[in-house]
Amino acid sequence: MTHTTVSAYAAPSPKAPLEKTTVPRRVPGAHDVLIDIRYSGICHSDIHQVNAEWGVGTFPMVPGHEIAGVVAEVGPEVTRHAVGDRVGVGCFVDSCRTCENCRTGLEQYCTGSGMVGTYNSVGRDGEPTYGGYSTHVVVDENYVLRIPGAVPLDAAAPLLCAGITLYSPLVHWGAGPGTKVAVVGLGGLGHLGVKLARAKGAEVTVLSQSLRKQEDGLRLGADHYRATSDPSTFTELAGTFDLILNTVSADLDLGAYLSLLRTDGTLVQIGAPEKPAVLAAFSLIGGRKSVAGSMIGGIPETQEMLDFCAEHGIGAEIEVIRADEINEAYARVLASDVRYRFVIDTSTI
Amino acid sequence: MTHTTVSAYAAPSPKAPLEKTTVPRRVPGAHDVLIDIRYSGICHSDIHQVNAEWGVGTFPMVPGHEIAGVVAEVGPEVTRHAVGDRVGVGCFVDSCRTCENCRTGLEQYCTGSGMVGTYNSVGRDGEPTYGGYSTHVVVDENYVLRIPGAVPLDAAAPLLCAGITLYSPLVHWGAGPGTKVAVVGLGGLGHLGVKLARAKGAEVTVLSQSLRKQEDGLRLGADHYRATSDPSTFTELAGTFDLILNTVSADLDLGAYLSLLRTDGTLVQIGAPEKPAVLAAFSLIGGRKSVAGSMIGGIPETQEMLDFCAEHGIGAEIEVIRADEINEAYARVLASDVRYRFVIDTSTI
Repeated sequence: MTHTTVSAYAAPSPKAPLEKTTVPRRVPGAHDVLIDIRYSGICHSDIHQVNAEWGVGTFPMVPGHEIAGVVAEVGPEVTRHAVGDRVGVGCFVDSCRTCENCRTGLEQYCTGSGMVGTYNSVGRDGEPTYGGYSTHVVVDENYVLRIPGAVPLDAAAPLLCAGITLYSPLVHWGAGPGTKVAVVGLGGLGHLGVKLARAKGAEVTVLSQSLRKQEDGLRLGADHYRATSDPSTFTELAGTFDLILNTVSADLDLGAYLSLLRTDGTLVQIGAPEKPAVLAAFSLIGGRKSVAGSMIGGIPETQEMLDFCAEHGIGAEIEVIRADEINEAYARVLASDVRYRFVIDTSTI
Repeated sequence: MTHTTVSAYAAPSPKAPLEKTTVPRRVPGAHDVLIDIRYSGICHSDIHQVNAEWGVGTFPMVPGHEIAGVVAEVGPEVTRHAVGDRVGVGCFVDSCRTCENCRTGLEQYCTGSGMVGTYNSVGRDGEPTYGGYSTHVVVDENYVLRIPGAVPLDAAAPLLCAGITLYSPLVHWGAGPGTKVAVVGLGGLGHLGVKLARAKGAEVTVLSQSLRKQEDGLRLGADHYRATSDPSTFTELAGTFDLILNTVSADLDLGAYLSLLRTDGTLVQIGAPEKPAVLAAFSLIGGRKSVAGSMIGGIPETQEMLDFCAEHGIGAEIEVIRADEINEAYARVLASDVRYRFVIDTSTI
C-alpha cells in the first residue's frame, strides 16, 4: 500500500463550490512527516486558483497553503521533527534543492524545477499535490516548519503565507528603527504587515481607501492611518517613506505612490494585480527610487518569522469557521468582509 | 561692475538653430571660481531642452553641462581650487546645501530648493544660468570638480554627465567581480557604461538592437555583444544579469528585459523615455526583481568617478567639433550618427 485516503474539501471543477471528498496521501517515506492538520487558512489566491484565474489548474483541487497541525507520524530517517511537534506548512512542499537559490534558502525562487506548490502542483513522485483543506498531509521534513508554543495554532496558520509574505520584504529592505514604512491596504496581508513592521521597530502608516478600519489599524500597531481617497494624503506625505508594501491587487496609480517615497525608497508589489501598471521613468529617476516584487519567503526565513512572531506575541487576527462555511467565506473574502483572515477548523471536515 | 560679458552659442528661441552671441557672467564672489572653458560635451538632453521638450525653458538658452577647463581666477575665500587647475563642471552648479541629501553628497536629489541646473535654471542670485557652450563660466567652488592630469580635457568633458550617470548606478548596485552587467544601447551613455563596468571588474554584455557596433563594443571592453532584435537573445540569456543599465530612451518591453535578470536583479532606467512603460507585477515578484531609476551623481561621487577614470585610463570616445558645427552635430545625434560623444572645442566660439 503506497497511499491512504483522507478527507478533504475540494472544488471538483473550475469555479465550482467546494464540497467534501477524499484524496490520496502517500504513505510517509523515509524523510516524510505525516501531519494531523488542525487549522488551514483561506488565502485570496485559493479563490483565484479555484476559479482558474491563474491558468487552467488541476481538478479536483484541494486548496490551502496556510497549514498548522501536529506531527502524527515520521519516516525512519526524519531528524527535524518528532511525533507531537506543532508544525506548519506554507506555499510549497518541495523544490529542486540544488540550484543556488535552493542552496541559499530562497526556495521560493527555485530556478531548477521550480518550487512544488502545496496544492495545484505536481510533486516529485509525479502525483498532484493537495492542500490544507484536509485532515492530513504528508510533507518532506525539510519543508515543514516548527510552530513555537507561544503562537496558538489557529492564529499561526495564516503566518505561513500571509505572515512570511510581509515579513520577508520588511527584512530584505531593512525596515527597523528610524525607518518609515507604509502598508497599502489593511486586509489579510496588510494587517500582518502592520504588526510585523511595528515589531521590527519601524514607524508604520496604513494607506487605505477610507478611514473605515482606522480604529483597527491603530489597535494593531499603526502609528498613522491615512485615506488614499483624500488627495491631501499624497501632498502631505510626499517624500516620506523608506518602504511601501502594496498588498492591494487593485490597479494602483504607481506614480502617485512613488511620490510618497524618500530618496532611495522602494515600493514593493506583494499583491499581483491582474492588469499591468503604468510606470513613468521620471517617477523613479528623480530620487533613485525602485519598484520591486517579493513572493513569500524561503524555509529558513519562514522559520525565523515564526520565531519572531512567538517572541513578539504576533498572530493573525482570525475568524475560525467550519468546513461547511468555506464557500460562504470565499464570498465574504471577495466582498472584503473579513477581519482579517478566515481559518478553517479542520476537525469539522 | 557685477557682470562681465562672454561669448557663447545659444538657441535664441525654442527649436531655433544655435548661433553665436554673448551672455553675462557674474564677477567671481568670495567662493567662486572663474573657469576658462576648453571643451564642452553635447548631451542628448541639450537637444531636448533646446526643443522645449522638457517644459518651456528659458531663452536665449546656452546648453552644455559637460564642461572641462582650467581655473582662470578664484574668489578670495576659495580653498578647493587654484588658478591653473584642471577642473570640470557637470549638470548642476548649486543646491540647497542644507537638506539631508545635500549634506550626504547626494546633491542631485536635493529636496530643499532642488539642484540648480548648469543651464536653463535660476541661480541663487535670481539670474538665469548659462551652460558650457561658452568661453567662460563662474561656479561656486563646491560644485567644481578636479580633473586628474591622466585624463585629457576633451575626453574628460563627457564624464561630467554621461560618465557619472553610468558610474553611480554601477557603484550603488554593486557591480564588480563576480557580477554580470548588461548595458542596453551603445551610445554616448552606453559606451562609458561598458568601460566603467569592465574596469569595476564585472562581466559586461552589450544589448543592442543590431550587431552593427559589435566590434566597437568588444574593443571598449564588453565580454559579450547581443542583438535584441534576435529573439534567441532573450531565451538564451534568461535569468543571467545582476544589473541591467538601460541607456535607451526608446520604448522598452520591460517584461522581456526583466526576464533577463537573476533573482534579486535590478534594471535601472537611466534614459528617460517620453512614454511611460507597462509593468506587470508578475515580472518582478517571481524573483524579487526591481526596476529603479538613477540620475547623474553627487559631487563626492563625481570626483570619485573622475579619479577612478584616471586610475583606469578611461575617457569618453569623442569627436571634437568646432562651435559652428553644433547644429549639424545635433542632427547627427538625433540620427545616432556619433561614436560616441561630440565635444565642442570652445576656442572656436
